[in-house]
Amino acid sequence: MKQRLFTPGPTPLPEEVRLGQAREIVHHRGKEFAEIFKEVRQGLRYVFQTEEEVFVFTASGTGAMEAAVANLLSSEDRVLVIKGGKFGERWAEIATAFGVQVIPLDVKWGSAPDPGLIKKKLTAHPEIKGVFTQLVETSTGAVYDIKAIAEAVRPTEAILVVDAISGLGAQFLPTNEWGIDVVIGGSQKALMIPPGLAFVTLSPKAWSLVENSYTPRYYWDFKKVRKALDKNQTPYTPAISLICALRESLSLIKKEGWENVLARHARLAEATRRAALALGLKIFTKVPSNVLTAIEVPPGINANELRTIMRDGYGVQVAGGQEELRGKIIRIAHLGWMDRSDMVAAIFSLEMSLSKLGYPVTLGKGVAAAEEILKE
Amino acid sequence: MKQRLFTPGPTPLPEEVRLGQAREIVHHRGKEFAEIFKEVRQGLRYVFQTEEEVFVFTASGTGAMEAAVANLLSSEDRVLVIKGGKFGERWAEIATAFGVQVIPLDVKWGSAPDPGLIKKKLTAHPEIKGVFTQLVETSTGAVYDIKAIAEAVRPTEAILVVDAISGLGAQFLPTNEWGIDVVIGGSQKALMIPPGLAFVTLSPKAWSLVENSYTPRYYWDFKKVRKALDKNQTPYTPAISLICALRESLSLIKKEGWENVLARHARLAEATRRAALALGLKIFTKVPSNVLTAIEVPPGINANELRTIMRDGYGVQVAGGQEELRGKIIRIAHLGWMDRSDMVAAIFSLEMSLSKLGYPVTLGKGVAAAEEILKE
Repeated sequence: MKQRLFTPGPTPLPEEVRLGQAREIVHHRGKEFAEIFKEVRQGLRYVFQTEEEVFVFTASGTGAMEAAVANLLSSEDRVLVIKGGKFGERWAEIATAFGVQVIPLDVKWGSAPDPGLIKKKLTAHPEIKGVFTQLVETSTGAVYDIKAIAEAVRPTEAILVVDAISGLGAQFLPTNEWGIDVVIGGSQKALMIPPGLAFVTLSPKAWSLVENSYTPRYYWDFKKVRKALDKNQTPYTPAISLICALRESLSLIKKEGWENVLARHARLAEATRRAALALGLKIFTKVPSNVLTAIEVPPGINANELRTIMRDGYGVQVAGGQEELRGKIIRIAHLGWMDRSDMVAAIFSLEMSLSKLGYPVTLGKGVAAAEEILKE
Repeated sequence: MKQRLFTPGPTPLPEEVRLGQAREIVHHRGKEFAEIFKEVRQGLRYVFQTEEEVFVFTASGTGAMEAAVANLLSSEDRVLVIKGGKFGERWAEIATAFGVQVIPLDVKWGSAPDPGLIKKKLTAHPEIKGVFTQLVETSTGAVYDIKAIAEAVRPTEAILVVDAISGLGAQFLPTNEWGIDVVIGGSQKALMIPPGLAFVTLSPKAWSLVENSYTPRYYWDFKKVRKALDKNQTPYTPAISLICALRESLSLIKKEGWENVLARHARLAEATRRAALALGLKIFTKVPSNVLTAIEVPPGINANELRTIMRDGYGVQVAGGQEELRGKIIRIAHLGWMDRSDMVAAIFSLEMSLSKLGYPVTLGKGVAAAEEILKE
């Protein structure tokens, strides 16, 4: 059966990306790659909205999160971690693994942290080296108010480190303008390429922490990456075919325009939420993002059965809930290489599958609600 | 101009691999990927010649080297590092970055370490936790006698850690049979896929070191990888498209047969050496491997000019010397997706380019010498 991915990573690949990957390989120290890499660096600065360099690591997104901890902190340092889902917990786990003391700011899953509370914590603990947060908490679909958080952090000694792995390119995040110190991105989300690359960009304030950190590191060493960039290279052999694919996707994003890409995500998200509401479903997330829509599975319906019917009956693959949300929500991503017809297909499959499971559905009602948003 | 890569990584890609990468992406927690990953795990055990699991990291080869150090050792531990080239030095650098004390065994570049000396060092320093070596030192093309080294290490408390990144699949290395504790591999060499995956396999003896190491780690954590394998998964989103490509290349290797793949490498290597000698050139390496042939650039010839003519005049890309060998050697790889016609093209371009630079060449003499080896 024809399958469509509506998971919050990996996301579908444009043909240019698939074929960009499939080209005969070029050498990472040769002229041709140098041209490609130069273009990619420029394109990444555009997507990150920064004038600083964006570092490219051959790794999963988690690797870049570890790189941030290993370069910015030392054991016994204290950090404030926003814990509002699985990926906030990952920040805490990584920091703890490196001997860093975690002060958690627990946020109800699906909600966003209160910037005022972050300010309070920073005042109470002036020794805090950094605030570690998500832009979008992928496990719940919540988007955090990074602008307000940045304003709370900026006047302090602490830096702000934002895991924007799922949100980058889907959610408004002007790194320079908002004065965010560290932003981390991943490849298999709105950047529309397969997983395998992760990105980090740093402010001068963040660099001063790098200078003082004594955590052991080699592969993740930011200074090595920066030095290699002087020669327009990476310190170690990079995932060449993924970088070739990235050139293609960055060129697509540039052609569409960053603001338009964000607007497309916002509109598809809005249409999906309206459809769910029209079907009498509840949106789980209090502050829903443009990345995915987390929908509560109605009483009497089994989440796994629902996802199985959507996949095997209609070729629509959506994500389930993770950890404490297992069985309670489904997550429909509208992320990356997605258009209106894709979302209509997803909503159609949701209507049909719910109906099949005995949930009372007026067929077409979800799609109709979505169309109201999609028609403009 | 039609370009051909004769570099010791990346290496050319079979069409099956290129197209395997270009497929529409599948989800890493889905049924389809589970099938693929199962097949890949089996294929890796075949290429590594081991019954243990082979761990797959989304990283450059250097990442897996760091993973070995971070999981096996703790700061203040002592290790013996075989330093016979750039990659031996990398072992020492990584170990030092993690606070590990390095006892170097310096080997003249191009030569192999004396297993007797390793035995002596281990006797003199019974506190040594591990011997860190290469199978093939890619910077010189030298292949080390891992069988004899393993025999020297086995009776001691130390483990043997072999960086086989360039040698895996090109050089005889029966991991289980020889009792090697840790073997590390890379994707962009004889495995014929693009860079971006790195591999590690561990013996039970090595696992006992993992249990005792307290080095901070998260992304590289072997225990997390082992636990995820129980569910036939990786702990973090892997480089899915590269794993799909790997399934294709492993299937090609299986079809050809591991022994035949090695024999092909050996024969192409022998033909390349014979050609160089027939042209009056000197082989730099005392113990040449099947991975690459390092040829001394004759007096009066500029190595960069030679490589430039080979590339721009004949579309043949070979590697130069690294660090202390810069300008002194060229390295012609016969690694991965290579056949006899490829090597004849490389030798042809070498003859023509040397001749153009004024080096006395009887045209066809190198090719003729190669053909003597290739005709059987």
